[in-house]
Amino acid sequence: MNYQFADRVRYFDASAVREILKVVNKGNVISLAGGLPDEALFPVEAVDQAFSKAINSGNKALQYAETEGLFKLRQQLAERMHSKGMHAQPDNMLITSGSQQAIDLFSRIMFNPGDVVLTEDPTYLAAIQVFQSYEVDIVPVKSDRQGMVEEDLEEKLEQHQPKCVYVVPTFSNPDGKVWSKERREMLIALAKKYQVVIFEDDPYGEIQFEPDQVPNSIQSLDHDGEYVVYTSTISKTVVPAMRLGWITGPKEVIQLVTQAKQAADLHTNSISQHALSHLLNDYDLDQHIKRITTVYYERMNVMKDCLNDLDLEGLVYEIPKGGMFFWLTLPDSIDPAALLEKAVDNGVAFVPGKPFYVEANQTSTMRLNFTNATIDEIKEGMNRLVKTFNEI
Amino acid sequence: MNYQFADRVRYFDASAVREILKVVNKGNVISLAGGLPDEALFPVEAVDQAFSKAINSGNKALQYAETEGLFKLRQQLAERMHSKGMHAQPDNMLITSGSQQAIDLFSRIMFNPGDVVLTEDPTYLAAIQVFQSYEVDIVPVKSDRQGMVEEDLEEKLEQHQPKCVYVVPTFSNPDGKVWSKERREMLIALAKKYQVVIFEDDPYGEIQFEPDQVPNSIQSLDHDGEYVVYTSTISKTVVPAMRLGWITGPKEVIQLVTQAKQAADLHTNSISQHALSHLLNDYDLDQHIKRITTVYYERMNVMKDCLNDLDLEGLVYEIPKGGMFFWLTLPDSIDPAALLEKAVDNGVAFVPGKPFYVEANQTSTMRLNFTNATIDEIKEGMNRLVKTFNEI
Repeated sequence: MNYQFADRVRYFDASAVREILKVVNKGNVISLAGGLPDEALFPVEAVDQAFSKAINSGNKALQYAETEGLFKLRQQLAERMHSKGMHAQPDNMLITSGSQQAIDLFSRIMFNPGDVVLTEDPTYLAAIQVFQSYEVDIVPVKSDRQGMVEEDLEEKLEQHQPKCVYVVPTFSNPDGKVWSKERREMLIALAKKYQVVIFEDDPYGEIQFEPDQVPNSIQSLDHDGEYVVYTSTISKTVVPAMRLGWITGPKEVIQLVTQAKQAADLHTNSISQHALSHLLNDYDLDQHIKRITTVYYERMNVMKDCLNDLDLEGLVYEIPKGGMFFWLTLPDSIDPAALLEKAVDNGVAFVPGKPFYVEANQTSTMRLNFTNATIDEIKEGMNRLVKTFNEI
Repeated sequence: MNYQFADRVRYFDASAVREILKVVNKGNVISLAGGLPDEALFPVEAVDQAFSKAINSGNKALQYAETEGLFKLRQQLAERMHSKGMHAQPDNMLITSGSQQAIDLFSRIMFNPGDVVLTEDPTYLAAIQVFQSYEVDIVPVKSDRQGMVEEDLEEKLEQHQPKCVYVVPTFSNPDGKVWSKERREMLIALAKKYQVVIFEDDPYGEIQFEPDQVPNSIQSLDHDGEYVVYTSTISKTVVPAMRLGWITGPKEVIQLVTQAKQAADLHTNSISQHALSHLLNDYDLDQHIKRITTVYYERMNVMKDCLNDLDLEGLVYEIPKGGMFFWLTLPDSIDPAALLEKAVDNGVAFVPGKPFYVEANQTSTMRLNFTNATIDEIKEGMNRLVKTFNEI
């Protein structure tokens, strides 16, 4: 049979990163490719206890539940946001199946085909995929290490009248960037001026190597609570398998996102929700985050030293202040795709930068992850990478 | 700020049933309204053990996972389908967050705005909501107690060239109908003739009061494996809170659905997936289903006796052979919405039939659920309902 699919499937694409990961999982390859937390650091005992409590807290906990998500969990997450200078109320929040779903549901209520979203370039690969699946025109804005560049942003706001500016302003994936306070304020000011919604995607914000060196979230600067829709997740700080995230923003937006969620999958796994609520109550999550952050900081420093030893003219990178990634700009002569092929032969994998770009104008870039490999693996992996650089 | 949302939000609507449930949860109202399994029958101990095993089966179980879903679980579900005369392979299957998500993801890959889906009328409310959110034209097909009527179906296949025929052929929600074997075969034959996909939604198929009295699924008749996309769930038979369902069908379809899933939420809660896999291994699910079915059968009979005692000229209903619902056609003089208001005053709730209709031409109908109330509650609830009928 000749199936007639929706037009939007033209824009579907298996994630390049996932395809690479499939290769990497085979054999003796050290992967510096993924964006995974280290499973050895998962708080398994606390998670186990939290699930046991959830399942035995009364059979109602196993029944169908409200689309909005468990009220108590929304309260707890709102309180955590308050402690970080943000504002949120349980009524303005929806629990989602990870923050990926928050991006998807927001897109569903916001975009008609042909609408415009402004993004950084490079930006989060799977956000690009979502926007494409809604047939949205993604227009990249010039950015430097401080964030989007005001002149280019304003020009594009005027020219394209976008529905939304999508940003990952704190330890961005892929390039690890942290927006300065001034650029955050600039973005809020322009959002007001041009009446456009900012979507702040913040999965990495809590993985900070130098506490208090990073400005508060853009959401915390939106004093009117009208311009920023904010999402975060526990996938990087607790465990990804619980598939829990949340989205908060103006009530009108969250109500529609909630209706979209109802049609999409009724409600988020409520055993996981109850479990997270118990975990936030019984377990010192902040202490756990400090612990994993210390380990990731150490690993980042090891990778930094290895990069230091790499004698490659034209190589540019910054030292990440948090998050999970080094972002390398290579000499133009090096093709990261060809480099990857040789690297995998030598037993190490990374992600070429190309799929993170909207315009793919800057392809001599690559991403290295330092959270999902041990120090020994990082050292050996970087040795293999140095060897690969020397071979090409 | 004046938010500019997507056109599709025009078709969003909070579920009427959920709004009623909110009212019902307050105070001393006996609810015969929802479509919930009885939480008192949940296999809590087995679920608890399964989750504990899942969480302690190695930290990889808590890591990010493949979009397709746990391979072993897909094998197990395929085997369960084989045991019911269906065909399925792990490679043609995607694990979803409940079968609601299966409907949503399928719609995403299938429908452009203005495309046509044929449905029964009445049909599953939340499927209508999904189709509307994709701006699909829903065209109802005339049905009797055996299923869709061939002449009307063929006429509409010819006239509308639909992308899909959506059916709930076994213990349908809301009207509890079971399609005859002949109508199932007729639907397959017309699907072949007009090259159209059948979407078979089968959440209730295992809740059978008289085993072997119900024809095999339509999927089992699709010998080419080309025409039927099939979804089911454990929400009615194990626990809804695990949010697990699956979708299976032609490889080409499932590959695209999987790509849509990746953009939508990366993958389904994998702790739940591992837990269900352990549960299917360690626990006699078929015995459990027999147990709950026996209880539901008893309750159905109690409700049947109460309905028998109800002396109301023009009242029409059939005795359900499974599932969760009685479907009542009332005399035209009775307005179910007005009846509900009085019924809630009298301490009982049901769902008026109107929101289940695409064309809303037949509004003197109502749905009664017999699975989420005890026998005493059903008796008292039906007393209150009889009282309400007598008052109007």
